[in-house]
Amino acid sequence: MEPVRDGEADWTLEALGLELAEPGSAPLAQRLYRALRGWIQAGRLASGQRLPSSRRMARELGVGRNTVLAAVDQLIAEGFLESRRGAGIFVADVAFEGVASQCREARPSSAGSDVGEAALSARGRRLLAYCATLDERHGAFAPGVPALDRFPHELWQRLLRRHQHAMPTAWLDYQAQGGVPALREALCDYLQLSRSVRCHPGQVLIVQGAQQGFELIARLLGDVGDRVWVEEPGYSGAQACFSAAGFAVEAVPVDAEGMDVASVAATRPAPRLIHVTPSHQYPSGVTMSLARRLALLEAAERHGAWIVEDDYDSEFRYGQRPIAALQGLVDGARVIYVGTFSKVLYPGLRLGYLVLPESLVGPFRRANARLHREGQYPVQAALAEFIARGHFSRHVRRMRDCYRGRQARLRAALAPAVARGLRLSEGQAGMHLVAWLDSLETERVLVERAVGQGITLSPLSRYYLRRPGRPGLVLGYAGADEEAIERAGRWLAREWERSVRER
Amino acid sequence: MEPVRDGEADWTLEALGLELAEPGSAPLAQRLYRALRGWIQAGRLASGQRLPSSRRMARELGVGRNTVLAAVDQLIAEGFLESRRGAGIFVADVAFEGVASQCREARPSSAGSDVGEAALSARGRRLLAYCATLDERHGAFAPGVPALDRFPHELWQRLLRRHQHAMPTAWLDYQAQGGVPALREALCDYLQLSRSVRCHPGQVLIVQGAQQGFELIARLLGDVGDRVWVEEPGYSGAQACFSAAGFAVEAVPVDAEGMDVASVAATRPAPRLIHVTPSHQYPSGVTMSLARRLALLEAAERHGAWIVEDDYDSEFRYGQRPIAALQGLVDGARVIYVGTFSKVLYPGLRLGYLVLPESLVGPFRRANARLHREGQYPVQAALAEFIARGHFSRHVRRMRDCYRGRQARLRAALAPAVARGLRLSEGQAGMHLVAWLDSLETERVLVERAVGQGITLSPLSRYYLRRPGRPGLVLGYAGADEEAIERAGRWLAREWERSVRER
Repeated sequence: MEPVRDGEADWTLEALGLELAEPGSAPLAQRLYRALRGWIQAGRLASGQRLPSSRRMARELGVGRNTVLAAVDQLIAEGFLESRRGAGIFVADVAFEGVASQCREARPSSAGSDVGEAALSARGRRLLAYCATLDERHGAFAPGVPALDRFPHELWQRLLRRHQHAMPTAWLDYQAQGGVPALREALCDYLQLSRSVRCHPGQVLIVQGAQQGFELIARLLGDVGDRVWVEEPGYSGAQACFSAAGFAVEAVPVDAEGMDVASVAATRPAPRLIHVTPSHQYPSGVTMSLARRLALLEAAERHGAWIVEDDYDSEFRYGQRPIAALQGLVDGARVIYVGTFSKVLYPGLRLGYLVLPESLVGPFRRANARLHREGQYPVQAALAEFIARGHFSRHVRRMRDCYRGRQARLRAALAPAVARGLRLSEGQAGMHLVAWLDSLETERVLVERAVGQGITLSPLSRYYLRRPGRPGLVLGYAGADEEAIERAGRWLAREWERSVRER
Repeated sequence: MEPVRDGEADWTLEALGLELAEPGSAPLAQRLYRALRGWIQAGRLASGQRLPSSRRMARELGVGRNTVLAAVDQLIAEGFLESRRGAGIFVADVAFEGVASQCREARPSSAGSDVGEAALSARGRRLLAYCATLDERHGAFAPGVPALDRFPHELWQRLLRRHQHAMPTAWLDYQAQGGVPALREALCDYLQLSRSVRCHPGQVLIVQGAQQGFELIARLLGDVGDRVWVEEPGYSGAQACFSAAGFAVEAVPVDAEGMDVASVAATRPAPRLIHVTPSHQYPSGVTMSLARRLALLEAAERHGAWIVEDDYDSEFRYGQRPIAALQGLVDGARVIYVGTFSKVLYPGLRLGYLVLPESLVGPFRRANARLHREGQYPVQAALAEFIARGHFSRHVRRMRDCYRGRQARLRAALAPAVARGLRLSEGQAGMHLVAWLDSLETERVLVERAVGQGITLSPLSRYYLRRPGRPGLVLGYAGADEEAIERAGRWLAREWERSVRER
């Protein structure tokens, strides 16, 4: 316990005075606290060094003694200083500099993103491999983006306002009821009527988007190393969830009748989950045939697997009514139905839902409340009214007309290319078309040329797990307005014709 | 291809007529579709059976022919019927009944919740073991619930309305910017000033609650079988996330200086994560000493582990300023700071945040956008203004006074018990006190007696991974009003004295 030398105290006080004289908006006590703390952290005040008395500090710094005491008390509470009875205040004896230099050395300042990826877990790195296409969601042809400009904002905001205002205080708290009851009821009515889903409101679990639904399913129903069968080509968003949950993701081919389980069922070990988009396969657009649906249900039954029915955009069916859901086909089938409001309303809403078999309701509700918590109850209540009052069905009908029109514009713009051999998917439903190409080289060239045109060309081959996949383009036509779609379509037709000539 | 017999067609039409005559609100075509579909599903119409002609059906049922055609077309599209050129419409040849009976047999109608749990994955069952306390969050003494009655609803709703109204259309779409920039900036200012966190806005990632933050951390930084060290006693919400992510959850004892890493570091394999609540340990309430903080940073450095600093309620510090965060102690330390708005504002808001080391920002942002999606942008924007305009700090100050008052009321009510030996934690911070008991039997008796009193007594022993833990009670005093807290405190004092007498 060396006594402080007068020279040290003077040096300290002078430097402190200079630091406090600099302009700053924080209260003086806090600035003094920060200055002293910074000095100890930087080793400018050494362990065991004694601070000048609070009276002297106050006098020399020209601040109130209470200011000094507040700063010093805080530093004592945090352990940077210690008060020794009768002897004064000392810098605590902590090996600060040792730890600090250890951390500095371990992390060179040149640390770039490569260092970040190296720090990740194996599953983290696998997951990031599914993130490649994330930045390409904008511009004409971006898939999965609805017509945000056509959303009934005013009406929706009125409902939101009303329900936010009328919100019971209990809704501010943690909840574990599976979502606002009125929403589960309205949704149930809607699903029974328009999707032939068999359910009662108790089976509905409101989640924060379909992705959260996939996550719950993956973790509650599968362990690490379990298999999930996915469609090939298929939806990488769901695959990312399954992969991050430790599943082995196995591709099952899709043909004109949808996923062909029979082609693999005999030769492969049993899966725990089977992810399908039977109403409107993503991205190929085919509808799963009844025979394939029954074969799928039968295979799930035989393997003890769960079918995850991802019904992401079946509301938009042109021609006849939407194809009924797989979920309602057979009573007691091993199907979990996953729905989302991201396509019908808007992605930023972050609401989706599961329809669960009776026996899974309790576990899923508890796990969801524990892992994700429930929330957004006023938004859920507003949505319940939006559905119950028929606004939802009306919006679906309007968007169906809108998207049918946009698809027609796109087809018209692409007609010259189609006349010269470009093949387009049928487009009986949904928000995108697929254009099949004859070579990966053409795919690559077209995607490259689109950059900088305000056009997002998604290569179909990227939707395949087994590379190289089939070449093609996924053309979203829902999110951009008619003019933009037409312009982009004409551009693509020209570029395609050019690529034909150049071959 | 047998021709339909007239008797069959008559039977079909008569029964259909009866079914359509029943009252119902759906359009006729849809009711006809459903009736026919139901019959095929139930085996009442057999494979290969021919339907009467559409003309005859329309005439006999007394509906328009277009109605019949719409229903039949839908059933053809779904594969239940098939049209054979020149021969008519037939029930498709699908083995419907076989699959249906298989599913029926596999799931007896008596399926209860036990069947549900048996269907879960091993990690799903582990996770549910953390859900036992979920239903006990209400009434006096429920821990972790803020004073929802004191929340400035009117002001908050005004901000929400304004930002919902002014919302750019782009916010309806998928986002991947780590949260609304204005919120990340406002938060950064706040964290630097009041928590001494070292950060710039780019390091902040807005998530849908702290739980989502734990999940991202667990999966991006750890693989299955990796170790996470947690405080003992500790927070089961975080432990549930780590366990569900496949971590081995290992307890490290907490004493009066916080988690004691040195007590285990020499003998145990390296952890990948270390979860701590250094500002105000949950639930014991102790503040981690500076020496322990440095030892923790040093251990993380040595093991290559990441420290997850869970700063759940440090805003509420009575006496001096909140203890500065561990995150800002040393430059380049391996710390991820996790914050939540559930305690300061309200749990139903579902917003929290991570402050990430620079090298992890990119991977976390991409993985979050992929796994969870971002959303609630208008709410984030409203919150940014709430913080930037000082409402947040003001609300924190008001709640600090409110909770200090509620704690004082609780202490006063418990004074007779304390005079007879009940030991209470210091309560320099936070939203709960711990009452230590001398036996698990007393803990059990008190918890049992509280049932039905509108009082939630959380047994301290449940906060321990290694059973039996230390006996005690976790007494939340923030969520119930002064009168309720006082009444509950008096009840507890009486019951405790009774239990002393009975011994």
